[in-house]
Amino acid sequence: MPMPKEQFLNAMRFLAASVSVISAKDSSGKPYAMTASSVTSLTIDPPAILVCVNNGASIHDALVENANLCISILNKTQQEISNICSLKNMESRRFKNDFWDTSDTPFIKNAQSNIFCKVDETVAYHSHKIVIAKVLRAENADIFNTLMYADGGYLD
Amino acid sequence: MPMPKEQFLNAMRFLAASVSVISAKDSSGKPYAMTASSVTSLTIDPPAILVCVNNGASIHDALVENANLCISILNKTQQEISNICSLKNMESRRFKNDFWDTSDTPFIKNAQSNIFCKVDETVAYHSHKIVIAKVLRAENADIFNTLMYADGGYLD
Repeated sequence: MPMPKEQFLNAMRFLAASVSVISAKDSSGKPYAMTASSVTSLTIDPPAILVCVNNGASIHDALVENANLCISILNKTQQEISNICSLKNMESRRFKNDFWDTSDTPFIKNAQSNIFCKVDETVAYHSHKIVIAKVLRAENADIFNTLMYADGGYLD
Repeated sequence: MPMPKEQFLNAMRFLAASVSVISAKDSSGKPYAMTASSVTSLTIDPPAILVCVNNGASIHDALVENANLCISILNKTQQEISNICSLKNMESRRFKNDFWDTSDTPFIKNAQSNIFCKVDETVAYHSHKIVIAKVLRAENADIFNTLMYADGGYLD
């Protein structure tokens, strides 16, 4: 008997999480970005972080081993870029706004944290890849103001 | 040049997360539990979730393939059990309280969600294992009241 998927989805509604945007360029220099709530700390030595990425996400193929990526933890004033990077019909508009610095690895200006990483390993699991990224450096805001999502919406 | 570990740790302070307790019995029936903020949704089909576990954690050796475990997402009234399951010097007291039902796979009564899982795969990465768990069933509270941790403390 398969478990009711609804039980799982309801549990995941209760798993509150920070809202991050992950971003990278492919080998031709084209930028990609995706909103993610599955970012989590993995190890301190080496500093490493993981994020789960759907195989169908546009950024997926850019996240090969040794690719540079940025994980931008958003702050509460940045809901708009979270929406732009999560809605499929906004795909073509993800970088057509003033949130970004795309001169090198793209990152969101004034984010809560910008964590610059290099992909170390990817682990395939059904529809997703677990992307394990070594942290190169991080730029952090001074005061905690992280945007969080739970129960179907952003938290105040 | 190694990146300043402090930059990474400060970024992780800003990565707000739900507080969960993961619990399992070993093959002899001895229960283990550990507070974790690294629980994240992985796939919907199959319903699967991951959690990062330090190789030195007492629960580590119980989380072999096919082991049953429960991921209890805590609610805001359950800070005490979060503390008990995270402090090393409370190790022997983790189950000496009234929070638990240990009749089968241990779980925390009245948690925000109790997600009953079976370990599907583990992936080793330096000091940690990524434990990938298939969800068998989940029991959820009615109203969102998840305990969250960020910036060195519990959030209100």
